[in-house]
Amino acid sequence: MCGIAGVWNVDEAYNVIHDVLLSIQHRGQQAAGVVVNGFYGVKGEGLVENVLTDEKFIPGNKGIGHVRYSTYGSLDEIQPLTAHTLKGRISVAHNGNIVDADEKRKFIMESGGIFSTTLDTEVIIHYFSIAPYESPKESLQWAFSRIKAAYSLVILHDSFLAAARDQFGIRPLFYGKFHDGYIIASEDCALRTIGCEEITEIDPGTIVFFTDNKDPEVVRFAKRTDRFCSFEFVYFARPDSNFYGVNTHEVRKMLGMKLYEEYGLKADAVVPVLDSGFSGALGYSQVSGTPLEYGLIRNHYIGRSFIMPKNRQEIVRRKLSPLSSVLNGKEVILIDDSIVRGTTMKIIVDMIREAGARKITVGIHSPPVIGSCNYGIDTSRRSELIASNHEIERLKEYIGADELMYLSVKGYREVFEKSGVRGVCMGCFDLNYPI
Amino acid sequence: MCGIAGVWNVDEAYNVIHDVLLSIQHRGQQAAGVVVNGFYGVKGEGLVENVLTDEKFIPGNKGIGHVRYSTYGSLDEIQPLTAHTLKGRISVAHNGNIVDADEKRKFIMESGGIFSTTLDTEVIIHYFSIAPYESPKESLQWAFSRIKAAYSLVILHDSFLAAARDQFGIRPLFYGKFHDGYIIASEDCALRTIGCEEITEIDPGTIVFFTDNKDPEVVRFAKRTDRFCSFEFVYFARPDSNFYGVNTHEVRKMLGMKLYEEYGLKADAVVPVLDSGFSGALGYSQVSGTPLEYGLIRNHYIGRSFIMPKNRQEIVRRKLSPLSSVLNGKEVILIDDSIVRGTTMKIIVDMIREAGARKITVGIHSPPVIGSCNYGIDTSRRSELIASNHEIERLKEYIGADELMYLSVKGYREVFEKSGVRGVCMGCFDLNYPI
Amino acid sequence: MCGIAGVWNVDEAYNVIHDVLLSIQHRGQQAAGVVVNGFYGVKGEGLVENVLTDEKFIPGNKGIGHVRYSTYGSLDEIQPLTAHTLKGRISVAHNGNIVDADEKRKFIMESGGIFSTTLDTEVIIHYFSIAPYESPKESLQWAFSRIKAAYSLVILHDSFLAAARDQFGIRPLFYGKFHDGYIIASEDCALRTIGCEEITEIDPGTIVFFTDNKDPEVVRFAKRTDRFCSFEFVYFARPDSNFYGVNTHEVRKMLGMKLYEEYGLKADAVVPVLDSGFSGALGYSQVSGTPLEYGLIRNHYIGRSFIMPKNRQEIVRRKLSPLSSVLNGKEVILIDDSIVRGTTMKIIVDMIREAGARKITVGIHSPPVIGSCNYGIDTSRRSELIASNHEIERLKEYIGADELMYLSVKGYREVFEKSGVRGVCMGCFDLNYPI
Amino acid sequence: MCGIAGVWNVDEAYNVIHDVLLSIQHRGQQAAGVVVNGFYGVKGEGLVENVLTDEKFIPGNKGIGHVRYSTYGSLDEIQPLTAHTLKGRISVAHNGNIVDADEKRKFIMESGGIFSTTLDTEVIIHYFSIAPYESPKESLQWAFSRIKAAYSLVILHDSFLAAARDQFGIRPLFYGKFHDGYIIASEDCALRTIGCEEITEIDPGTIVFFTDNKDPEVVRFAKRTDRFCSFEFVYFARPDSNFYGVNTHEVRKMLGMKLYEEYGLKADAVVPVLDSGFSGALGYSQVSGTPLEYGLIRNHYIGRSFIMPKNRQEIVRRKLSPLSSVLNGKEVILIDDSIVRGTTMKIIVDMIREAGARKITVGIHSPPVIGSCNYGIDTSRRSELIASNHEIERLKEYIGADELMYLSVKGYREVFEKSGVRGVCMGCFDLNYPI
Repeated sequence: MCGIAGVWNVDEAYNVIHDVLLSIQHRGQQAAGVVVNGFYGVKGEGLVENVLTDEKFIPGNKGIGHVRYSTYGSLDEIQPLTAHTLKGRISVAHNGNIVDADEKRKFIMESGGIFSTTLDTEVIIHYFSIAPYESPKESLQWAFSRIKAAYSLVILHDSFLAAARDQFGIRPLFYGKFHDGYIIASEDCALRTIGCEEITEIDPGTIVFFTDNKDPEVVRFAKRTDRFCSFEFVYFARPDSNFYGVNTHEVRKMLGMKLYEEYGLKADAVVPVLDSGFSGALGYSQVSGTPLEYGLIRNHYIGRSFIMPKNRQEIVRRKLSPLSSVLNGKEVILIDDSIVRGTTMKIIVDMIREAGARKITVGIHSPPVIGSCNYGIDTSRRSELIASNHEIERLKEYIGADELMYLSVKGYREVFEKSGVRGVCMGCFDLNYPI
Repeated sequence: MCGIAGVWNVDEAYNVIHDVLLSIQHRGQQAAGVVVNGFYGVKGEGLVENVLTDEKFIPGNKGIGHVRYSTYGSLDEIQPLTAHTLKGRISVAHNGNIVDADEKRKFIMESGGIFSTTLDTEVIIHYFSIAPYESPKESLQWAFSRIKAAYSLVILHDSFLAAARDQFGIRPLFYGKFHDGYIIASEDCALRTIGCEEITEIDPGTIVFFTDNKDPEVVRFAKRTDRFCSFEFVYFARPDSNFYGVNTHEVRKMLGMKLYEEYGLKADAVVPVLDSGFSGALGYSQVSGTPLEYGLIRNHYIGRSFIMPKNRQEIVRRKLSPLSSVLNGKEVILIDDSIVRGTTMKIIVDMIREAGARKITVGIHSPPVIGSCNYGIDTSRRSELIASNHEIERLKEYIGADELMYLSVKGYREVFEKSGVRGVCMGCFDLNYPI
Repeated sequence: MCGIAGVWNVDEAYNVIHDVLLSIQHRGQQAAGVVVNGFYGVKGEGLVENVLTDEKFIPGNKGIGHVRYSTYGSLDEIQPLTAHTLKGRISVAHNGNIVDADEKRKFIMESGGIFSTTLDTEVIIHYFSIAPYESPKESLQWAFSRIKAAYSLVILHDSFLAAARDQFGIRPLFYGKFHDGYIIASEDCALRTIGCEEITEIDPGTIVFFTDNKDPEVVRFAKRTDRFCSFEFVYFARPDSNFYGVNTHEVRKMLGMKLYEEYGLKADAVVPVLDSGFSGALGYSQVSGTPLEYGLIRNHYIGRSFIMPKNRQEIVRRKLSPLSSVLNGKEVILIDDSIVRGTTMKIIVDMIREAGARKITVGIHSPPVIGSCNYGIDTSRRSELIASNHEIERLKEYIGADELMYLSVKGYREVFEKSGVRGVCMGCFDLNYPI
Repeated sequence: MCGIAGVWNVDEAYNVIHDVLLSIQHRGQQAAGVVVNGFYGVKGEGLVENVLTDEKFIPGNKGIGHVRYSTYGSLDEIQPLTAHTLKGRISVAHNGNIVDADEKRKFIMESGGIFSTTLDTEVIIHYFSIAPYESPKESLQWAFSRIKAAYSLVILHDSFLAAARDQFGIRPLFYGKFHDGYIIASEDCALRTIGCEEITEIDPGTIVFFTDNKDPEVVRFAKRTDRFCSFEFVYFARPDSNFYGVNTHEVRKMLGMKLYEEYGLKADAVVPVLDSGFSGALGYSQVSGTPLEYGLIRNHYIGRSFIMPKNRQEIVRRKLSPLSSVLNGKEVILIDDSIVRGTTMKIIVDMIREAGARKITVGIHSPPVIGSCNYGIDTSRRSELIASNHEIERLKEYIGADELMYLSVKGYREVFEKSGVRGVCMGCFDLNYPI
């Protein structure tokens, strides 16, 4: 997962990119980078506030930026990437994965090409460079038509800024008007926060070119076949972001409601695992009549401290704190969006039980993950893929819950069908992959 | 406001103090300091994670620490303070205010004493030094019996660690057993998080001495007259902290319920101003039947960034984000614990209205602040003290709300009477001050 | 100007490179970089001690490093450069210039190649990649045989470390044996300092390959035609460095002696402009009988301070300080190796005169620079090229000296002929360029 | 050893103090501190350029500063010290030692006084505070008349800046006029560098007060009995500093000449141990006719690096480098001002011998140190006090020299008598202490 940003014709582009990246910081906390105007850049490991400091300000009114999670690339391969080509200088920031990147790298290398990083992004730049066109714009279109990938991209060229989405629209991308210029961001919340107008979701299979003295030019390079990543709705995106005009918080609430619909379980209290489980818990609470309670506190000062990380258990126990006055003697339904590591959920269940809960049901408002993702989500961090009911039973015992509820694939699909979202990818849940 | 910590006979006291201070970081984000063992110290401006880094580790098994808000003292006067006296070396960390500090400083100076800071804490050290006793312990008792003040203190001496609370118990202080040693903290949540046992609330008017090979020794220096700061319950303390065995989250919920009881107002949604208004909003929602909704998102990555602070309006707008899918067309009750700056609430109301809310009622689950605080709370940051209904009306208009509900002093008092808390100070609400 | 380092089969290669770069820090203070073992790197602007810190230690027993002056490339283009190719990963650190770099870049780009930097070094990597050989070693030889350039290079490949010098040997390069491994450095002083044995000056037109379990393998790729940069002797290299077995300090002394031989001027005192003019002044003093005096002190703490640089005059005045007890009432001969900026010399002459000197002769122990350098020396920083006696007269007046002595081209050449150095480039003095 | 600075009525006092401290940085590299105007301060460990950065600029037109060596006090006790007293706020920076500090601290503590540091400086502040006068000026005079000490001080009070020297004038202190204000510094070179006029050496036993709209007011508090530290001339002060109108470089040259006079030894080359031995070597060379040679190079980039310090031998070998082309086959006289650690000189002698020197004579242009210093020089760092000829013989063998020449006490005294210096302390050489 990553987040990307672009700015065209706005004063102090550096500061604007900083602010946009701050709004999408949740999409990547490992590294941040920016390239402004004449391709000068600032990059570094860590949070936006630590990398894009005031002292490093670069003047200029156009640029692109990136925040990185971790999927691919060692820590010193921080985007955006910049290259000098016969068709001009080009900088690229990328959210997504190229499925057949290894073959494409080999193909480029076999004709003598060199790579300065291990990033897929550099494959895109090479394809731009070898495209059989003189025009940079046509070269980009050719490149995208050749690459099988999940990507949202911002591209800064000497003569334009471009934003592109693959034909499945797996990763999100938006742009909005700001004074006399434009701002691009992975999520619309960032554009609203900054005060953009006419916020537009970029069509899958198109590139939008921003050039001087013109309206944005939309060029289609592939047929649109919407397969937007459903996990963006479930987990990644901010609750105030919308895709296809549908709000993520509302979808999460509906998923929580659907979970109750499937299991019909009531209790003394619905307790969200903060912050990610809040919306689903609210939905579950409202439809079930079981009151939402503040049973688990989160310490927001924890997380980047150097000393603490002794072991996972201690970290979780310092980050989350159970409220025994709320939990003592109660039957509790604990709601979260997904289980990434069973170890964390096990510690939470332990804490809730130590605080006096009589019965603990864990409710997950998405289905079990049974397949890996090739489009930019790091499923390698998931301790295990859960393919059968037998494994769910084992997981329940491992985490120590009295009950473990997962949303069914069918129920999950129904929520999206009803929501108005045009088409989603659920590959990691149903092995039905678009590419 | 400040937070304090102490450690006696626990390995790696530095790391333990770090972890305790991290749990009470909400009590002060301006500066942090620690003194370990042989009175070596680390101090600095900023958050605990930035000041008490791994590289600065000091070996030792006893020490004290401090996080600072801002009330008194320029930024280079960071606690703990250390002094060399005829009775041994002594380090002190202090949460509170000495009411007649200026006279006491003058008294000391008139006999030739010098002050290296402007902190009240140094007055305490001087009184310890001039006390007509040879024994450090008796000297401390003498000092406390002479000082009219609101304080919770941790004191590290060559031969002991001590924790003390003024006779009114205005500021909180706890200790707990940890393996073969003891840990002291401003709030019990920090002790639970770290795994302490036998957590004890220190009696107002007593000093607890921790020495080798002994149980803690409790010495009373003044008659107990409980007047615990009610604002700790309303705002300062963490929701998982307890005072007098009463949970702060539960009190906030009760205050929210009492607010509904007084006004009887229902609407389409109760929206908490996160994070401080959440507990009260939950109480209001549960008793009124008006559903709690997630109408205002908070970006936890914002707050310490260098570039952004252009003006207050932009900061608030980047930090808090309204959810129009939740708010559009709705009658909304916005709940917060207090109004520190009307300017912030004004911006929030504006944002809620822009997101489409039809009617906005602001509900505050404490009474209007009509007097200043002399016991450690910085009321100077409050834009104005609100002494009359006329002024409440003006404030309502300023912030742009359709209605503005404040809890009555009577209702506020009733909640505390019912809660089981032994005695609270409400001086800033009713001008009835203990000292 | 730059300095380069390489390490093969020596424990803690990172620390060794650090120490080597520290010894050749005078060759570049703008930036430093290192790549160790599996191509992990540390890079940054500033001095070696600030960039290659202890905390950033990378384990491994082979690596290369670089310190940079400024000639080519923006500040974020710090060497070594690393690339992934079909023939393996390769990292390169480079001291020198490619004369026809622009054409070569264009040639590569025309076949679709991309450049991630503006550095000449990347051209070398591209030629390595496109070389019509599978073997990395043969590819390197092919690349060097195709490139018209002044370069000394260290190259780290998956399977070897290599060191190469262009056929003219314009830039220096040495290696030495260290325990069971080898160390490479721009100057032999660095190898001696670290304790190397069997220190060898690399032959112009050869590559030396270091591989496991073997002696270094020397491969000639071009006929040797020695044209070593005479400015290395005059200015760049450390006084304890030797080229062709000839010590730089001794050459500078001989140049100072030759200057006296040409002008025959005596005075009360010979005063060196520290540190660069010391050796020449010593020679001048010894042969003329005019005593060397310590008339100009240098403050070594100055130079990297943030506040000071108000203007050049104030900087020079804080850095250099005249000793009036030495200078007052004296006829003084001020000796330096060259005049880079007349503005600096003008300030020095002013200071010497204010300190009471009666007559000031400036003696430069190299000829006037009349042409630019294409082999890695930044002549753009020289305020003006001095092509005629008329201009020397104008310069004398500008700097305010009573006399200005430059060494003649003939005298300069004679010193080198007599010194035993095999062949030097004096292109910037006589316009006779080798490439 | 320390260095002190003061500024009265000069714009941007912070920057001026920065520049003054940079000129006297050689007097202390462990820590630096500054206090400006309203007693705001910046302090830190390390060099001036790293502590007094541009970002920490404090506006104001008066202030004091300090650089610290190490003698007394742990590293977090950095000067200037500031205190609040009945007579106003006062900040003090101090160069020197109070001989009976322990008794005086005890005396203050017995009447209840507390100390926040272990610095002698704080004793001075206490005496100022307890002085039986209301007037701050009279209080200072009283304090100085009561304290037996070696000190030079700058004192910033709410209503004046003061500079004071003990009656023996053991440590140096100067002031000069700058525009409409005044600057104070430990050495006159700092004042000349900055452009001061009317530079005045402060009379031993006086305080100079700088107040608004007045000329400096000189107040004598004790009879003048000049015993200026002769080691300032030999080692500490910069070569371009003068005391009693006598230049330190000239004195060192005379000491070198005297050394030749006493031993009459000639050789092939006189080699200075840079930088400290240069002046003495020049004197020795000129009077003996033995040519000065550049046999030992110093790398000025070494010294503050984190990685290197493996052991003393390696550090010295990286810092100093012998020039074998100069030394090979020669009889060498190595000149330094003193031997602080025999270990360093031993390594130097080893290096010179490895470089081929046939015979090595070490010449020290001061007598053997036989007693400790109580006036601010850290003799504890000297490995041993050398009290007899027998021990000199042993030292010669330890360092591996063929001959070891020390200047006689008689010869040393004669140089000072002839120089025009009014009276010096040679206590560490002849055990004749003034206090």
